[in-house]
Order: sequence, then C-alpha cells, then structure tokens
Amino acid sequence: MKFERIKSEGLAHLSYFIGSEDEAIVIDPRRDCQVYAELARREGMNIKYIFETHRNEDYIIGSLELKKLTGAEIYHGHGVNFKYGNYLNEGKEFDFGSMKLMALHTPGHTDESMSYALTDLDTGKEPVMVFTGDALFVGDTGRTDLYGPEEAPRLAANLYDSIFNKILPLGDGVILCPAHGAGSVCGGAIAKRDYSTLGLERIQNPALQKTKKEEFIKFKLEEQLEFPPYFMKMEQYNLQGPPLLQDLPVPKLFSPEEFRVEMEKGAVVVDTRMPHSFGGAHIRNSYSIWLGGVPSFAGWLLPYNKPILVVLEEKEHLETAARYLIRLGYDNIAGFLKGGIAAWYMKALPVDGFNFISVHDLKNELEKHEEMTLLDVRKKKEWAEGHIQGAKHIYIGELEENLDQVPKDSRVIVYCDSSRRSSIAASILKKHGYNNVYNVLGSMTAWKNAGYGTVK
Amino acid sequence: MKFERIKSEGLAHLSYFIGSEDEAIVIDPRRDCQVYAELARREGMNIKYIFETHRNEDYIIGSLELKKLTGAEIYHGHGVNFKYGNYLNEGKEFDFGSMKLMALHTPGHTDESMSYALTDLDTGKEPVMVFTGDALFVGDTGRTDLYGPEEAPRLAANLYDSIFNKILPLGDGVILCPAHGAGSVCGGAIAKRDYSTLGLERIQNPALQKTKKEEFIKFKLEEQLEFPPYFMKMEQYNLQGPPLLQDLPVPKLFSPEEFRVEMEKGAVVVDTRMPHSFGGAHIRNSYSIWLGGVPSFAGWLLPYNKPILVVLEEKEHLETAARYLIRLGYDNIAGFLKGGIAAWYMKALPVDGFNFISVHDLKNELEKHEEMTLLDVRKKKEWAEGHIQGAKHIYIGELEENLDQVPKDSRVIVYCDSSRRSSIAASILKKHGYNNVYNVLGSMTAWKNAGYGTVK
Amino acid sequence: MKFERIKSEGLAHLSYFIGSEDEAIVIDPRRDCQVYAELARREGMNIKYIFETHRNEDYIIGSLELKKLTGAEIYHGHGVNFKYGNYLNEGKEFDFGSMKLMALHTPGHTDESMSYALTDLDTGKEPVMVFTGDALFVGDTGRTDLYGPEEAPRLAANLYDSIFNKILPLGDGVILCPAHGAGSVCGGAIAKRDYSTLGLERIQNPALQKTKKEEFIKFKLEEQLEFPPYFMKMEQYNLQGPPLLQDLPVPKLFSPEEFRVEMEKGAVVVDTRMPHSFGGAHIRNSYSIWLGGVPSFAGWLLPYNKPILVVLEEKEHLETAARYLIRLGYDNIAGFLKGGIAAWYMKALPVDGFNFISVHDLKNELEKHEEMTLLDVRKKKEWAEGHIQGAKHIYIGELEENLDQVPKDSRVIVYCDSSRRSSIAASILKKHGYNNVYNVLGSMTAWKNAGYGTVK
Amino acid sequence: MKFERIKSEGLAHLSYFIGSEDEAIVIDPRRDCQVYAELARREGMNIKYIFETHRNEDYIIGSLELKKLTGAEIYHGHGVNFKYGNYLNEGKEFDFGSMKLMALHTPGHTDESMSYALTDLDTGKEPVMVFTGDALFVGDTGRTDLYGPEEAPRLAANLYDSIFNKILPLGDGVILCPAHGAGSVCGGAIAKRDYSTLGLERIQNPALQKTKKEEFIKFKLEEQLEFPPYFMKMEQYNLQGPPLLQDLPVPKLFSPEEFRVEMEKGAVVVDTRMPHSFGGAHIRNSYSIWLGGVPSFAGWLLPYNKPILVVLEEKEHLETAARYLIRLGYDNIAGFLKGGIAAWYMKALPVDGFNFISVHDLKNELEKHEEMTLLDVRKKKEWAEGHIQGAKHIYIGELEENLDQVPKDSRVIVYCDSSRRSSIAASILKKHGYNNVYNVLGSMTAWKNAGYGTVK
Repeated sequence: MKFERIKSEGLAHLSYFIGSEDEAIVIDPRRDCQVYAELARREGMNIKYIFETHRNEDYIIGSLELKKLTGAEIYHGHGVNFKYGNYLNEGKEFDFGSMKLMALHTPGHTDESMSYALTDLDTGKEPVMVFTGDALFVGDTGRTDLYGPEEAPRLAANLYDSIFNKILPLGDGVILCPAHGAGSVCGGAIAKRDYSTLGLERIQNPALQKTKKEEFIKFKLEEQLEFPPYFMKMEQYNLQGPPLLQDLPVPKLFSPEEFRVEMEKGAVVVDTRMPHSFGGAHIRNSYSIWLGGVPSFAGWLLPYNKPILVVLEEKEHLETAARYLIRLGYDNIAGFLKGGIAAWYMKALPVDGFNFISVHDLKNELEKHEEMTLLDVRKKKEWAEGHIQGAKHIYIGELEENLDQVPKDSRVIVYCDSSRRSSIAASILKKHGYNNVYNVLGSMTAWKNAGYGTVK
Repeated sequence: MKFERIKSEGLAHLSYFIGSEDEAIVIDPRRDCQVYAELARREGMNIKYIFETHRNEDYIIGSLELKKLTGAEIYHGHGVNFKYGNYLNEGKEFDFGSMKLMALHTPGHTDESMSYALTDLDTGKEPVMVFTGDALFVGDTGRTDLYGPEEAPRLAANLYDSIFNKILPLGDGVILCPAHGAGSVCGGAIAKRDYSTLGLERIQNPALQKTKKEEFIKFKLEEQLEFPPYFMKMEQYNLQGPPLLQDLPVPKLFSPEEFRVEMEKGAVVVDTRMPHSFGGAHIRNSYSIWLGGVPSFAGWLLPYNKPILVVLEEKEHLETAARYLIRLGYDNIAGFLKGGIAAWYMKALPVDGFNFISVHDLKNELEKHEEMTLLDVRKKKEWAEGHIQGAKHIYIGELEENLDQVPKDSRVIVYCDSSRRSSIAASILKKHGYNNVYNVLGSMTAWKNAGYGTVK
Repeated sequence: MKFERIKSEGLAHLSYFIGSEDEAIVIDPRRDCQVYAELARREGMNIKYIFETHRNEDYIIGSLELKKLTGAEIYHGHGVNFKYGNYLNEGKEFDFGSMKLMALHTPGHTDESMSYALTDLDTGKEPVMVFTGDALFVGDTGRTDLYGPEEAPRLAANLYDSIFNKILPLGDGVILCPAHGAGSVCGGAIAKRDYSTLGLERIQNPALQKTKKEEFIKFKLEEQLEFPPYFMKMEQYNLQGPPLLQDLPVPKLFSPEEFRVEMEKGAVVVDTRMPHSFGGAHIRNSYSIWLGGVPSFAGWLLPYNKPILVVLEEKEHLETAARYLIRLGYDNIAGFLKGGIAAWYMKALPVDGFNFISVHDLKNELEKHEEMTLLDVRKKKEWAEGHIQGAKHIYIGELEENLDQVPKDSRVIVYCDSSRRSSIAASILKKHGYNNVYNVLGSMTAWKNAGYGTVK
Repeated sequence: MKFERIKSEGLAHLSYFIGSEDEAIVIDPRRDCQVYAELARREGMNIKYIFETHRNEDYIIGSLELKKLTGAEIYHGHGVNFKYGNYLNEGKEFDFGSMKLMALHTPGHTDESMSYALTDLDTGKEPVMVFTGDALFVGDTGRTDLYGPEEAPRLAANLYDSIFNKILPLGDGVILCPAHGAGSVCGGAIAKRDYSTLGLERIQNPALQKTKKEEFIKFKLEEQLEFPPYFMKMEQYNLQGPPLLQDLPVPKLFSPEEFRVEMEKGAVVVDTRMPHSFGGAHIRNSYSIWLGGVPSFAGWLLPYNKPILVVLEEKEHLETAARYLIRLGYDNIAGFLKGGIAAWYMKALPVDGFNFISVHDLKNELEKHEEMTLLDVRKKKEWAEGHIQGAKHIYIGELEENLDQVPKDSRVIVYCDSSRRSSIAASILKKHGYNNVYNVLGSMTAWKNAGYGTVK
C-alpha cells in the first residue's frame, strides 16, 4: 500500500494519494496536479478514481485537470449542480487493488459533503482510514456558516449527526484524514499535528466534547470566522469546473521600465517580500503580502479582472508564488519584476520606505499619551483573547472597506501578531493616501515577549 | 509538528523523526543517517535525543553515527551491557517542543526492549502515538525465538504482558509506529500497510486475537522463522557501538582485468542484476542476489572477512547497493565492475550462462517423469502452504550447508516464488560445481497463474 | 554571458543557448524543449530568437514548440519551402544583450544551410564563435549525399566553398559550435571531443586537409554513409512544422495481459534492455534495441502507423525512452509493460530465450568448419576496416529487406562490434522465423581483445 | 571526452575536470571538492592527477581534500616551499585516456606559476586547450603586484615572456581555460564571457596589444588593484596544506537568545541580506555583506580568530553562505540565527534601522549645499572613471582603518555603484558609532540612469 498526504502550504490543504497493487485513487486533488501523476508513474500505478469531499470554497479543485492527465473518473456528492464528474450515493463502494472505499454522506459543512471510509481487505473488514473533508479536522470541526446565519443552525445540526452518528461509529482505531491542517481559513482551531484518529478526536477535540446536540450547535454558532470574498469565485469555479491549466504558467519577466508601463495601464502589484524588506524599500502603491501569506490573503485583496504583477525577494520564489496564485484561480498573473526591487531602484525609479516602531517605543509613546491611531488588524478571535489598551480593531481583510474609520490626518500605528499582516495593512493605508503609517516590529508577539500587558 | 517515517527498503526498517517547534528526536536511526540531519536542517530544528527500542539484530543502528553528526543524546533500555549511550527506566519522560515522550519497558522480543509513548501537550494528556520497536507490528508481533527454543516460552509470555498490559491499554486511538514493515526478517506476517492504530490491531492482528496468555504463547511458539547468521554480527556491533562511517564509502571502479585480479586474490563477487539478466551472462563463481534482495540475503551468504566485489545492471545502482551493504556492516566493499557485465565480455573474459525453464515445460517434464532434482528454496512457511509435487525443500539461506542433499550428477531445477531466490540458489549450485542447473522462470507465481496444482 | 551546449544523447545532437544581459537565443532546439525555457527562467532572460541551421533530417526540430512556450521568433535559410518561421538572408544581423549574431549562407549539406557567427561587442568586432550546423563538425564535415548521388558532387563543391571561403576565414581563434557530436548518423568520423576551434580544425580535421576543391569533392564522394528510412519523415515534419507536444507524453502502464492484447491488435514491441538481459528472457516477436541505441536504430525499424509498446529494464528508463522516441516523431507510443519482463514471465506468458556464443567458441567452431551463416551487421565502413573471415555483411538497418540472403534452415551467428547491434539483428531474425540464432558475446571487440585475426 | 568548467560564484574561480575514457584529471580544485568526485563517479572515471597552476592567494585550494577522497596525485610548480604534493618541471607530460597534458613554466603572476597544455591524441599532436591559471584571462592578464612594488617590474617582464613566448605560440586555435572569470579580485578587467581562445585574446585582449615588452610592463605597473588582508592567510594555507574538512560544516541553529549570548561573548555577526532588507531592520553591530558579496568582502572584514554568526534572508541560503566562507578558510562559523531577523524582533530584541536616500533627493540636497560627508567607497579605478562632485573616496576594504577621515558629528551619505557595498560601509560606520548614516539607493547606477553628471 502506498499512502501519501500531500500538503499545500499556506492553504494548509491536505489531499491524498492511496495506491494498492497497481491501482490508485486521489482525494481532493489540487489544481497543480502533476504531483499525483508523478507519484503514480513512480509507483507504477494507474489512477483510477478521483473523489471530491465537497464543493470547496477556499481553493480550486484539480479534479478535471487530473482527469485530463490520467483519464481517471471523478466522483462527488449530490446536492449541488456540478457540471462535471459523477454523483455518488451513500454506501457506494469502489475497489482498487486490495482496498475498498465506501462513500458516506456527511453534510454539515455543506449539504453535499461526503466522507470516504477505506478498508484494507488484506487485514479485515473494518475501515482503517476515513477521509472526512471539511467535516472533521484534527482538533476542530468544519465551519457551518457558509450558507449564512439563517442556515447555520441547520448545518450545525447536520454536522453533529454526521460526526456523531456516521463518522465516530466507524471506530476509535480509524485513522483520520481531513482536508485541512492548521492555518486553513476553513477552521479556526485546527491542531498543528496532522496525524490523528477518531479515538483521539473523540477524547481530545474540543467540539466533540459537546456530546449533546444542542450544546454542539451552540458551540458552532459562537464561532467567529472570517469570510474572504474570493470564496464566491471558488464555489463558482468548483461547480462549473475551472479552466484547464495544462501546466504552470511561465510569467513574463518585466524590466523595471516595462513593469512601470504595466502598472500605469492598470496592473496591480503584489510584493511578496517579508515586512522588514518591504519596509526598507518598495514600489509605491504595491500590496505587501509576504510569500507564505499569499494563499490566505491574496483572495481578500487581489482582483480577478486586472493583470497582477509580482515583486519577489529571490527569483527562486517565482514558482511558489505562481502556484499559490493559480490555486486561487488567479490566472491573470502578468509577470514579475526582473532583478527585483534592486533593479527598480537602480533605475532611479520612485521608491517608498516604511516606518517601523519597536514595541518598546510604542509602550513609551502610549504612556506619554502621544497622538496616534493604534490599529489591531488580527482576527476577531485573536482580538478577543487580548489586545493592547487603546487599540482599535479592524480585521485586515476588511480594512479596505472600512477606511472611513481610520482618520487620515493622524499617525496610524498598525500591529498584528508578527508584523506580517500589519505590513499588509500598512501597504493598504499607503495606497489610500495615508502618509504617516508605522508597522510595529514583532507586533503582539514582541509585545508579550517584552512583558507588556494586554486587555480583553 | 513534523513527523517523518523513514523506510529503509529491503530491510523494511522504519525509523522516525519527530519534531516540535525547534526540537526533534529520532527513533531507531539507520547507519547512513544523513537523512535525519538533513531533515533537521531543512526544518530548522535541533535533534535533541536518539531513542533505541532494543539492541537490533537485523541491521546496524545509526545512533552513534547520528550523535557524532548532531550531538544528540542516546537512550536505550536496561538488560544488556551497552558500551555507549544512557540507560532508561520505565516511566522516564522527555520533553521536546510541545511534545512529551514516555518510556515503557516492553520485553518479549528481547529483554531490554522499550516502547515510547508520545503525547501532544497542545491537544491533551493522552498519548497519540506509540513507537513499539519489534514488540508490535501492523498485522504481526515481534519474534520471540532469538534467545533459542528454551527461552522462547518465557519471552512469549513477556511479550503477551507487554502488549496486552502495557501497549494496548494506551488506547484504541493511539497511532502505531513499529520498527518494521512487510518484508522484514523480524516478522513473518507483517501487513503491507504501514499505517495502523492500537484499535485496529486489537481487532485485526491475528496474534492479538489470542487474548488468553497460553493461546498467545502457543501461537508464538508455532512460528517458524529463519535465523540468518549475520544476526550475531549485528548484535555484537549494536552492543559495542559499530565503527563510524562518516559518509557513504566510494567504492573503487575496477576494469575487467583489475576485477579479475581481485577475484583471484580471494574477493567474493555479488551480482545484483535481475535473474533474467544474470541468466543471460555472468561471471563464473559470482553470487546472484538481485538488488532489492541484498538487505535480506547478503547476510546469509557474504563474508565479513573477504573483500566484496559488485556487478551492477546500471552504474546508478551503486549507491543503493553500497547503502544496503553498509547497513548490514559490510564495510569490506572493495569495488565494482566498471562498465558492468558488458565490459567483461567485451574483454573476451569467461562468461557463464544459465538455463531457464518455463513452468509449462516443467509441468510437461514432470508428467513425463523426466529425471531431475526439483528444489524448492522458499521459507518453511511458504513450503507448508503448498508446493510442487515431487519437490524437495531446502531454504535458500541454508542451501550452502546442505549441498550433500542435492545429487551433483543429476539435473537440478530450482524454484522459489518468483525466480529471484532460485537465481541465488542456482548461483550457489554453480559455484559448487553443479553444471546442469535450471531456474524456473516465474516459479510458483507462474505455476499458479498457469493453473497448475500444488500439494501440501 | 551565459553559454550552454545542450547535448541530446544518442542523436549526439548539439543545440545552444546563448544569453547576454537579459536576452537569449537558441540554436537548433530539440523537440522536448523545456530545457531552454528553464534555463531562461533560471537566468532571468527572455528568449528572443530561435535559429535553425537547416531543415534537419535526423530529428524533429523544436522551434515551433519553443516559440509556443516563449513567443520567440524563428529564423531559417532560404531554399526550401518552410511552412513556418521567417527566412534569412546572408549577412542579416541580430542583436541581443551585448552580443551580435550574423547569418552566413553555407550550403553543401543542404541547399538552405546557414551558419551563424557570434560577436561579443564587449570585447571586439571579430566573431568569437560560429554555429555551423551540419557544415563543419569537430573532425568531420557534413554529409553531402542526402539529395542522391547525382546531386552529391554539386553539394560537395558547395560545402567546399562554404567551409574554405566563408567559415574558415572567420579566423583560427573562432570557437566551433557544430550541430552534432560523435555518434551522430550525420557524420561518420566526428571526434569524441565536443570542443574545438576553426584553427584546430584547419590543421587536424582530415577533410580540411583536402585543400584543393577536387580533392575535397573526391573525398566526400567516397564516403559511405547509411540512410535510415525515417529521414524522409523528419524532413517532411521539419518543413511543415511538426505536431505540437505541449509536454512529454505519459505512456500508459499495461499489465502483462493488457500488453498481450495490444500486441495481438497489432502493436509493435521494442525491448530496450541490454543484450545479455534480453537474451536471458524476452517476449516473442519483440525488437531488441538497447536504450542508448534507440535514437539511432528506432528510425530503421519502428513504424509510424502502429502503436509502439516498450519493455524496460528499470521503470526509471521510461522518460528517457519516451524522449528518444518523440525526438524522432514517434508520437505513437502506446504504453509500457508494468513490472517489466519479470511481470510477464510470472504470469506464465510465453518467453523466448536467446543463444550467446563466446568468441572463443566461435573461433573454435570456425576452425572446425562447423556449418553456420556468420553475419556481420556493422556499417560498411567498419566492415571494410576488417572483419572475421567467412562472414557475410548486411548492415543492420538493411537486414529486414535482405532476409532472402540469409538461409533460414542453417544456424545464424551474428556479430557487430559489441553484441548490441547484433542483438537487434538476432531479434529481427527471430521475428522472421529463424530459430537457430546466436549472438556473439562481445562481438568484434572481444574477438580482437582475444587476439584473433581479421581480414579486409 | 568529458570536459567540465566548474565555476565558484563570487570568487569567479574556474576549475576544470577533464576525463578521457576512464581516467580524469582536475585542475585547481576548490576546497568543497565533492563536485569533482561526483562527476568522476557519474562518468565512471577515476581521478588520476590533480594539478595546481600556482599557490593561490584568493581562495583555499582543494587538492589535499580531493586527494583524500580519491587518492589522486597532486602536482605543482617549483619555486615555493610546498609542504604537500609533487613538484613539476617544464615539459613534463602526463597521459590519461587518449589525452596528454604537458606542463609549462609560466611565471609572472607568481614565480612558480605553471600552465598546462592539453593534446587530444585522437585528433592530432597540436595542443587543443591550455590551462593558464592566473597568467592569462579572457580580456585580462594576471596581476603582478603580489610581491610588492619592487618586484612588480620583474614579474611583469616574466609574465610578458610567459604569454608571448610560451602561451601564445601554442597556436591561435587553442582554447583558453583560465583560473578566473569576471568579478575575481585577481584581475580588474576580466571579460564577462568565459569562453575564448589564444587567437581571440591575441587580437582582443587589451594587455596583449602591448606587444613590446616595455609597453606591456608599463601597462601592468599602472594597474591599481586592491589587496585584501586575507590573501596572506590563503598563501600560508596553500603552502602548508589547509586543514581537511571532510564535508561541509553543519552550523548550529541559535535561537535569538542564544545568538545574543554568543554576540556578548565576542562573536562577530555578518548579515547576508540585501541592503533594502538590512536597511529595514537589523541587529545592531552586525556587518552587512549581501550573500553574493561574501566571497569578495568577507576577507576584508571578518576575523579568523573569533566565532562568526550569520543572519540569512532565507534558511536555504545557509549552504551557500557556508561554502563561501569555508572557501576563504573561515572554519570558525559558529552558527546562524534560527528564524532570521523576524525571530529576533519578535523577541523584542533591539533592532536598528537604516536611512536610505534616493538619488533625486541627494541631487536636491547637494544643490542646496546641505551639510554632509558624501562618501564614495568604490575601487580606485571606478572612482577615477567618474564620481559625484563633492564626494570623498575611501575604498570599502580600507574604510575601517581610515575612519579618522570621516567626521563623526556630520551626516554621512555613502554610495557605491549599486547600494550593496555602500551598505557594507554604512554597517561599518554604525558599528563605530556613526549615528547619522544614509545609503544612496541605486547609488552611481541610479545616479547615471537619472541623467545626473559626474566629475573625474
């Protein structure tokens, strides 16, 4: 048996390749899907089936792409009007090698959500693994707020039934294979450990301690999760079948002058360097999204209808940046800046800097009651767990629409947990004409490490 | 959390790298241990501890080698007189990152065998994984015959206690991490699936269905496992601490003439090509052990006190062959044949061929009662499950000492399950002057696929 | 300046990537052209131009493929009716970075052949390199027989002019960059060294010692070079523009049974293992062409209108085999045998063996005047330089059409220089019903190494 | 024939692997010499000889290291008192495969300098390549100032004889293989093209246009080249034989707190990020040397007797940084900062920023006669070719000893050609208590691109 958990960083998306003898299946493939075809080739296996756990909202599914590459058949659940693939019913079984996969309808995250239980016929009839999609994670359960607040109680009730009446009864010894790990926007409290079992979750997963249905529903309804605007786009793509890629795009290299011309024609610039490097020197009007943050934040900020230009710290980052963007459906990458920011400033083109402030200086200024707008751009949940006294909260993803709450004439000091999201915020503010913006170096982490207090 | 299962092919040895935050541990490292150091470097972690589950008998442990590379501390169980590392007591705990590892004394396979239970402090107090060494495998349990038949009942009783009273009580949801997968000489029935849990083993593992102690002991005592002679060497090395390697050896390239000179001076030749290629043309007096079989069969045949020469199908196989040999302590690799067998025969040097016989022809000849010695060289267990009528059984590992049972003047036809072990047998026979030797192409697998019957 | 010589093994085809500052050109790209795009990406360069030296006859040019990938413009010489790209005139110049490339019309190998002289404007006005296509090689000159014997004198005269009046006058210090290295079917005597200059060729190249035009023409007309039938196909493709690939094909994996079905439906099998392995066991009716020989011999034997099936020694060879075949336009690869020949014989499917004979036994039999047809399948040139007394000569590429010259009822013993081409020959003979075929192990090389004599 | 030019970036050091049949030689190996052993293994060759062109002064030679790995013999010229290897005489010949290498004594750069002429016996008796060490480069000749101004005329005269009477007479068609490419500290005007011939140099190399001996000597004596202090260390090492490495060191990972402790105990910090990133945030008292500049500038600034700590932009840069440092003999790398600068500031540890000034603002301020010290830290040659009016010149390598020339109380604005060397300068000034330091973004390149004038 060949079992591979393929993790797409940033999205924290987990997909699975399972092979037995010379047949294999893939669960929830990502869009840049050569990885599965290569595994199959290396192992001497043919990919027979592709299973989707649900119509994903946070990334583009690679089923059609992988089908094109391998000829495998696609299956997904009933309930939404998929324009490709085959529908599944509860209980349908699939054989490959000496393995058997059985479909279970497990609604709650979405109505058409499926789980898949895997049996190893060589060792017994009991399932050995279960692929739960966004129903059950390690340490968390799938969000039930995607259809809006009115539908949430119904979805939470469905999820309760799916987990307690279908998934957990498979047995404590069953290995849990969810669709996301820590860091995903699809769950707020997923554990950092990707390896678990139903038995472990039954006793350790906080949500599963709510064994009474009403308690569970209440617990779910109290969750406060952000809803990035690109979700709508993903849902649409994953229903229709997204455009085929064939291969990773090869973005053009632009010289500084060419880059500038593209900008003037309306292209949007995203700079994937770290805050300290972006702060040192950057192109005016560019968004700062550090490379690792692109999967989570590009979908809040970048448009689908304008060309995207990229500034990189190292040209080796290009492939990663391109993968991250196309996984979110950004097929509109125009190109990247040849030679990076250094090439730009060596052409004497206009460069912006950035002010950093240390937590020590910030503390000092707060004590002296210096004038400032102190902006906390973390998630609601983080804010609720403790923030700096005097701060104002606007979540980074919602900042651009709430600029009226930030006075333009004052000094604005932004923080998050690390200075990375606050770098995004600072770049948004500067794009909108704020000229006196500071990013707090180390942000809340440094603040706490310095021993300074927070309020709730 | 970073978790990596490192599988050493052939030996089917499983070692583990577990990291949390910036600290990591390694369990049962192999001798060519750069793999762990590279993982640590890539993840930005320092390896803090090395744990051995027991004094291994089937490969050389890499603890000392890895300690030299990283400075990590070595731990192992009480009961044998280790010349390096630190002793452990039951219940001793180790912290790294947000993980905790606890030592459990689980004798049975050997007296000093330890298991290690891992707790993820981020999610709860119950253990999430257990590293069982050779106590409990997926689908099998550790052999209890290593101290000889007199000690076996005691060891089997100990193993029963270790499994039923210490390991299984950790909980059904605990992930099982054993020291071997299918194909290891340390277990006869290990499952092909490397992923399991205590709950799955409790209900699917054949040995664990013997829940009464006496039944379990009886079950263990009935096992018939081969005992390769190199085990003694491994035990000695793993007690004393094996010689340090520093890096993989770079074996010399010998021209055909130089190779011949080395042979004449007493070097032993092992040819790692597949049977069909070895059969086509090979150097007289060489052992045929296909590359993938080197970890299992070199230890039966190759000496530690004479230089070893290697013939490869592809020069790219050199590194694999060298790794396989040094994992068994064969530091006496002299070199390999430059240009392979083709270089040899292009020098007009003497070459032997090999006779193959198809299962159809064999069936035909058996029906006609043609004269032959039909030799089955599989394991006792395979023989017992069904063999060709009229065959004689000598296990491949014991053939060289039992040649008196094989008449030299008759035609000898050898089979195994696939033709690979029978190729070893044929090469042994030819080395000892048998001139009329045939290898059955496809052997028992082909025999059965052709629909021919077997007897028990 | 970035300069890369990309050698396609087997074809011994040399293509070139030359970059300066952020612009690059490619000369004579191969069909699997990702290599150039990756170089460009790694170096941060845009490929601006693609130059063809002539309409190649021995492989499929990758210009269109690379243009699709990069948008670069294609240029080639006048004189044949290309259906793509732009025509060039003598003297046309192209700038990229601080380099300049100038086109020179150098007919002789073909009428439209071009050479390209490269100047480094940073260091001076004199050319520093010249890309001569098939006009001038290291140690050899391009063949002039492609238009048939009537046109050969004219082409040889043209080549003389091109070399002596256009190329050599560029200067002794100019670095020579030809389109082929040793082993190409486009030249019979190309040196093993790929690095040379016009000055070195002027004094060391045998053809260039014929400084008088008539002598040179006479020398060229005496060349005896083989003309593989696939040349016609290549010329047609390279005129029209070959079909676009997008990426390497992913051939299907066939189980032995599926493979057999494909064979029965008319697919042609090519087995890329070495002679000793093929000889040990192979599928009846398969062609034996060792992997490294595929670029040179597939074009003699394999059809373009039937599916091709491949048997490999190692599954890692698949990519190489696929590349070799698609470079010759074999887009009809159906798939390969999963598990190789061992999977086949483990299914008890019919297998053929092969007889080898050592040079010592051959000598012996010849001395005893044993009955046999001794067949030499080497090139005319090799045969002329010395062969075994009593042998008959038929070039391997022409054997299939000349089987009437080989008596079917006698024993046939085949040799070449190494046993690889004779393995092809033996496989052809067996396909055509010859049952008593021997391949001479080590062939002429072993014969000479054994000290046995030859005749001319 | 196998020919590989191995370029060590930064040092722009060229070493060569030349193989023929199954024997190979290496010329001027670098210290991290696994690259040659791997080439040999891949090609199936044994390295027979190692040749040094001279006692190098700019990097540590890897001859002893490679000898240990492969057993090859080392050769170098007479004249200095080498503690290892064998001496060579003019005219000594070495055979390997079908190649011949002949030693030529070519003093001038140093007294014991050797060149090596390579003949391909397969194609003729004339040499085809020449390995000239630091005697003759593409576009330049070796420096003759290493023994001090008194010896320079004698060395220049020797070099004239070596080039004009020994090297050039080998023939215009001979391929030139020097020991350095553009960017080396061993030559001021080496061409960006690494590929040349004696014929091309004869007509294009500026120094070789001085065909009269006196002119040539005069030309050489006018050269102004910097002399980094680490040269002395290299000469000593390369005479004695440097300490053996075995393998690349694995530097320790330090947490920010551990890193700080090491600093307090006296370790020196080098930060290999780009100026814009270093400028954004860095650790007080660290040297800024961008990664690509380490080979050229570490030797000016870093001590051999204190531990070295490294800050990296990406942890993937570690290997490159380690290679660069050990090539200069910095075996005193203590470790690097885990998590980079972000980990540092998230611990609320003290961070310094940096002021950048654009060329436009600089121009403006100069026109307004604002008070400042404008410091040009480029080479004497660059300064002489044009600088900003009002600037003061101190070469970056000599800044630390000439701080008395820079007033501490004024604002200091530093420029080079790109902002990278000025970032080094700025970091030196800050280490020495200058608090008002600016780096000119884009420096002279931006200045010129902006159309601003220079003076000589």
